[in-house]
Amino acid sequence: MDDAMETGNLAPYQDRPRTFPNMRSKPSTPLVFRILMTMNVRLLFVLMFVVFGGIFYIGASTSPIIVFVFSICIVSFILSIYLTKWVLAKDEGPPEMAQISDAIRDGAEGFFKTQYGTISKMALFLAVVIFGIYMFRTTTPQQEASGIGRLTSASITVFSFLLGAVCSGMAGYVGMWVSVRANVRVSSAARRSAREALQIAVRAGGFSALVVVGMAVIGVAILYATFYVWLGVDTPGSMKVTDLPLLLVGYGFGASFVALFAQLGGGIFTKAADVGADLVGKVEQGIPEDDPRNPAVIADLVGDNVGDCAARGADLFESIAAEIISAMILGGTMAQKCKIEDPSGFILFPLVIHSFDLIISSVGIFSIRATRDPGAMGGGMEDPMTILQKGYSITIVLAVITFGFTTRWMLYTEQAPSAWFNFALCGLVGITTAYLFVWITQYYTDYKHEPVRRLALSSSTGHGTNIIAGISLGLESTALPVLVISVAIVSAFWLGNTSGLVDEAGNPTGGLFGTAVATMGMLSTAAYVLTMDMFGPIADNAGGIVEMSQQPESVREITDILDAAGNTTKATTKGFAIGSAALASFLLFSAYMDEVASFARVPFAQVDIAIPEVFVGGLLGSMLIFLFSAWACAAVGRTAQEVVNEVRRQFIERPGIMEYKDKPDYGRCVAIVAAASLREMIKPGALAVISPIFIGIVFRILGYYTGHPLLGAKVVASMLMFATVSGILMALFFNTAGGAWDNAKKYIETGALGGKGSESHKAAVTGDTVGDPFKDTAGPSLHVLIKMLATITLVMAPVFL
Amino acid sequence: MDDAMETGNLAPYQDRPRTFPNMRSKPSTPLVFRILMTMNVRLLFVLMFVVFGGIFYIGASTSPIIVFVFSICIVSFILSIYLTKWVLAKDEGPPEMAQISDAIRDGAEGFFKTQYGTISKMALFLAVVIFGIYMFRTTTPQQEASGIGRLTSASITVFSFLLGAVCSGMAGYVGMWVSVRANVRVSSAARRSAREALQIAVRAGGFSALVVVGMAVIGVAILYATFYVWLGVDTPGSMKVTDLPLLLVGYGFGASFVALFAQLGGGIFTKAADVGADLVGKVEQGIPEDDPRNPAVIADLVGDNVGDCAARGADLFESIAAEIISAMILGGTMAQKCKIEDPSGFILFPLVIHSFDLIISSVGIFSIRATRDPGAMGGGMEDPMTILQKGYSITIVLAVITFGFTTRWMLYTEQAPSAWFNFALCGLVGITTAYLFVWITQYYTDYKHEPVRRLALSSSTGHGTNIIAGISLGLESTALPVLVISVAIVSAFWLGNTSGLVDEAGNPTGGLFGTAVATMGMLSTAAYVLTMDMFGPIADNAGGIVEMSQQPESVREITDILDAAGNTTKATTKGFAIGSAALASFLLFSAYMDEVASFARVPFAQVDIAIPEVFVGGLLGSMLIFLFSAWACAAVGRTAQEVVNEVRRQFIERPGIMEYKDKPDYGRCVAIVAAASLREMIKPGALAVISPIFIGIVFRILGYYTGHPLLGAKVVASMLMFATVSGILMALFFNTAGGAWDNAKKYIETGALGGKGSESHKAAVTGDTVGDPFKDTAGPSLHVLIKMLATITLVMAPVFL
Repeated sequence: MDDAMETGNLAPYQDRPRTFPNMRSKPSTPLVFRILMTMNVRLLFVLMFVVFGGIFYIGASTSPIIVFVFSICIVSFILSIYLTKWVLAKDEGPPEMAQISDAIRDGAEGFFKTQYGTISKMALFLAVVIFGIYMFRTTTPQQEASGIGRLTSASITVFSFLLGAVCSGMAGYVGMWVSVRANVRVSSAARRSAREALQIAVRAGGFSALVVVGMAVIGVAILYATFYVWLGVDTPGSMKVTDLPLLLVGYGFGASFVALFAQLGGGIFTKAADVGADLVGKVEQGIPEDDPRNPAVIADLVGDNVGDCAARGADLFESIAAEIISAMILGGTMAQKCKIEDPSGFILFPLVIHSFDLIISSVGIFSIRATRDPGAMGGGMEDPMTILQKGYSITIVLAVITFGFTTRWMLYTEQAPSAWFNFALCGLVGITTAYLFVWITQYYTDYKHEPVRRLALSSSTGHGTNIIAGISLGLESTALPVLVISVAIVSAFWLGNTSGLVDEAGNPTGGLFGTAVATMGMLSTAAYVLTMDMFGPIADNAGGIVEMSQQPESVREITDILDAAGNTTKATTKGFAIGSAALASFLLFSAYMDEVASFARVPFAQVDIAIPEVFVGGLLGSMLIFLFSAWACAAVGRTAQEVVNEVRRQFIERPGIMEYKDKPDYGRCVAIVAAASLREMIKPGALAVISPIFIGIVFRILGYYTGHPLLGAKVVASMLMFATVSGILMALFFNTAGGAWDNAKKYIETGALGGKGSESHKAAVTGDTVGDPFKDTAGPSLHVLIKMLATITLVMAPVFL
Repeated sequence: MDDAMETGNLAPYQDRPRTFPNMRSKPSTPLVFRILMTMNVRLLFVLMFVVFGGIFYIGASTSPIIVFVFSICIVSFILSIYLTKWVLAKDEGPPEMAQISDAIRDGAEGFFKTQYGTISKMALFLAVVIFGIYMFRTTTPQQEASGIGRLTSASITVFSFLLGAVCSGMAGYVGMWVSVRANVRVSSAARRSAREALQIAVRAGGFSALVVVGMAVIGVAILYATFYVWLGVDTPGSMKVTDLPLLLVGYGFGASFVALFAQLGGGIFTKAADVGADLVGKVEQGIPEDDPRNPAVIADLVGDNVGDCAARGADLFESIAAEIISAMILGGTMAQKCKIEDPSGFILFPLVIHSFDLIISSVGIFSIRATRDPGAMGGGMEDPMTILQKGYSITIVLAVITFGFTTRWMLYTEQAPSAWFNFALCGLVGITTAYLFVWITQYYTDYKHEPVRRLALSSSTGHGTNIIAGISLGLESTALPVLVISVAIVSAFWLGNTSGLVDEAGNPTGGLFGTAVATMGMLSTAAYVLTMDMFGPIADNAGGIVEMSQQPESVREITDILDAAGNTTKATTKGFAIGSAALASFLLFSAYMDEVASFARVPFAQVDIAIPEVFVGGLLGSMLIFLFSAWACAAVGRTAQEVVNEVRRQFIERPGIMEYKDKPDYGRCVAIVAAASLREMIKPGALAVISPIFIGIVFRILGYYTGHPLLGAKVVASMLMFATVSGILMALFFNTAGGAWDNAKKYIETGALGGKGSESHKAAVTGDTVGDPFKDTAGPSLHVLIKMLATITLVMAPVFL
């Protein structure tokens, strides 16, 4: 890799030894934004008018449903602009807060720029590879029938891939952009009122949630409409509309490719800084978290933004995009098999569901007000968790209602008049699954419940027993979610199969679509869930700024309570993300089988693991998950060691730091972590991208020489399924163990088992340190990985044949 | 569970507060042995003559090969009697050593008796269940054709099951019996010469290895011959010899059932005592390991015997039995498909290979002499690892030769004259795989190599980074073994398929048998490997006795070196065990599919994971592995906490202990650990036994109502495969991480990175503590678990239909 590029943007930090508070480098706004900003306002309006007009025109030529989707997305974008304006109108507090916030913003934006520079180079390279593959491979009979040549097919795939990648990047940028601005405003508001601070954090989170979900929906819709018009779909001699969704897979792959590296890089950054800061600051020197004397503290706060906000934005963007596309593919396939007259309802259903998600989640977000009853509140403070949960309950109730309405509207067909009701029940299965996942995660990670208390108790017998107990808690916590997801898959499939939709031979065909609808049900409150998730790191950052700027105890208390609520929401949304990833992967797997069948021109409906090579594929798939997790954890460990050494060096070389006489060199820590995490994200990322392609090609060749047709495709399919299963389990393990350790420590800090400073607390801190890379690097990266594997196999399917 | 039974035998320890050295209870020899001992010697000889005569008569009526197998087994039993006599003839050293050894022996035998009491009750209950199932289920067409009714079929299965259980229990007992007697003799010999101590430990290990392997072989051979004669196999109107091996599956299940509980109970005992002793002794009080002042030290030493010796004996016994039976089944199926005239060569091949194993391993064991060149040796000491490796090399070379010879002798058929050569190559694949597994494990766990050194380095930045590095090392270490096993499966299958053996339609049929032969190759040095494994805990115990009886430094040095070598051999044989478990499971899976096809009377050759229910089965199978591991680790953690509290209590209540003025109450610790581990082994064990049956029945019912035939059997098959894959990976992770942490600590203790007592050392001790339940409880239990799952599904197959 290019060394200059890796560290280039961050070099200024390294050159200036005492840069704080003058460490700001030039703000690094992306080029597109800069061009937009320098433009004449009137010209901008004309341009926007033309663009939107064009989009609407294309949409109107496709289907009125598309126009509906466009309109809702645009309304939600306007809403999100209102939310930003509202948040940015809040004050930035005293200068010392603003200075800290500036340093965090610069670090985050600098890292973001170099990170996405690296990612975009890799994406461009991959785009060329994909183009080459599609130019040299055969096309499907459907494509030939509709006159789509190799060049068209290659262009479509590459264009979708790049659009997905760009949108995913933008989703990440938006998440980070607002969080580095909202953090200081939350800190400032915390000096006045807890409720106001909560509201700012929620609205900032809401802004990025609406943008992320809206962008995923509108991106797919635009692609769909453009291809529809361009290829003259449904006119004689051209493509059928039921085959159209298969052309969109590139978008999902682009999104997941960027999300994977964003999550890896960001996850390594945030946890290496956190672990490094804690190991020297908390454990060795005994200073509190986020203490301004700790040289790694700014790096830690930067990490929250690039790791949690940017990466989770990309993660959920990609989840929604992949799930929409796979559901559209399955809807199309089913409509074709059942010879439904107007299949557009089945194909466009996911887009409508997610449009409604934007509306109902907005209601949930706006339901959180600054003050309900200012007089009665007095000095007391309501539990932020209760307030957030109330908003979630409102959103869920609305989701159930709109889901029922949408299924009746879109999925009613005379061939099976009661099918829509079955699908509505599938949606209910999905919503219930989401709710149960959230509940189970809370049970295992909240110290109100038995498991975390037992974990805290195990700290009293030492570091070792704490780690053993945490690992077994994490392993055990996989059981209930797996049972829930199993019941969900089987029951949604059964509901779909008994919906009355049958193919020409009279076989029930609605099963897979039923699972797809359940997935949509699960994700039908995605925007609100993402809001709760984004709330966490913003509150965390606000707490850091309050601590660093030495605010009075009462202000810290408020941000501490917000931070604790943020920890819980972060853990629960991870459960949600992994549940939806499991279902989405299962759908993408089915889409992959369809795709292979199209390319190979033979039925491909079975993946028989009794064939030794196919079994070996599964073995390799599961191993891939273990190796990827190993490298992700090791990357954090290695980078953290660099931070530890740097922080120790600064404490030794400048003894004045501990007496507040000397200012630590924050910039150097940021630069070290940034350079290391960019370096470290490459290895696991490349493993994830290259292995499925490599395995597919090797077994394809082996199959060719042993006379076993489709061996490559079969082995990849089995690899994918085993990787999905192992990935789900490992992600659940990592997320829950990490969250539980964190809260066991917090429980002891409330005064239990000796409280802060006791031997139990030290053991609990060790557990928390181990949990950091689990829950914020390996775990979330695995969510993205399993979907990336599913989309890469879909896009690369022609290579395995 | 019965409380009195749990603690009954150990009650004397609890009642007497200061029992050491008078803590001996009555020796608890099993009933069978006591009856034999009280018998008249002449009567005994007559009895033996009659029994052996009968066996030989039955063998002679079956096949000359069976007579050959019997003869070799009997020779090896005689050889093992010679080895015991040789070991027991050695002196027990000074009285203080003998006293300690007596206490260890009593603790081990007491625990063994209560543990196996519990296990045998469960086994009897299960036997009744199996009998009931076979009485109410249909029989296979083959059975009907040969006139085997339900009662016969049920009796055969239950009888095999019970015989397998008894033999497995005896294998465990023999392993422990010799180790509790050899330990003190090794300690005593260490006062004279390192080489002599090594030789005693190796010969004691060799004794139990020969008995374990010999018993597995002769057990299967006797069952085979008995059924052959009883059912009049190969006479007109009765069973064909190719169907006979399927009747033996009960033996494998019985063996693995007992092995699972033996490993769980023993594993929890040994590591709870170890962790508990270390946490208070080493970490809190700063006294050395095995210090006589530590009240848990005797419990720790007892643990080595019941956990490592008894359990590993049962583990490998079960591996060999299961592998022999599955290979016999596959050989029979293949011979039948290819219409080979005399199929007995293919069926009995595994028995002959393992008979040769007894011979060549004996050569290896006897190659380790007390002194090679007494004059030249002087005071210096050769590395015991080198000596053991030399013996292993001899055994491997002999294995290759005998394998080639045996394949030519047994597998030559005129239908495919070169097939035997392909199978010989399959054997070579297996032997190479075994060798590579040993090498890879050494690379990841020996501190001569990079990984452990990096792990040790990560201790210098704290407890947290050490744990993170260890976990990522463990996860990473799964990659190479999986690649090796993948290549082995694919290439052995390919070699088998191209052997020239074809069925009537001309399709190649030798693939699966090729994999079976590779498994045999892998296990063809099992007796020597088991010897090396048994050597470890004996040396460890000897070290403990030396430390406790306050021997001079020079003696300790010798036992320390032996102990270090034992650690390496223990880790490598675990790699070996998991590799062979992976292959054996794959074979058993194929046998299961045959069995289902026989019972269901329809072909059953595919397990299609694209069916949602089948995919869900896989998800549940992997989850089972995680949950089982969680419970196994948690059991150790919980029990260790009890030990910690007891040891802390004793130190507080009797301050004289630390000044050697007061004797600690060792017995109480033994009793606490014993009671807790018996209680804790039930939950994970029951989970493992009940889940496959439960899942199979639920999906069978579901399949019945949704019109999906064989759904139960398919879901169980997928559960089995996913569980196998996840089980292999998790076992590799646990074993390697645990071994690496142990040796990273040892590396620091050699003086690196600050040496003993430094902060790095403390962090490394934490890692070692976490690794203990990984490598000695969860990891080895998973080996057994995946084979138990494979055999239970085989035996329970009729329930799923």
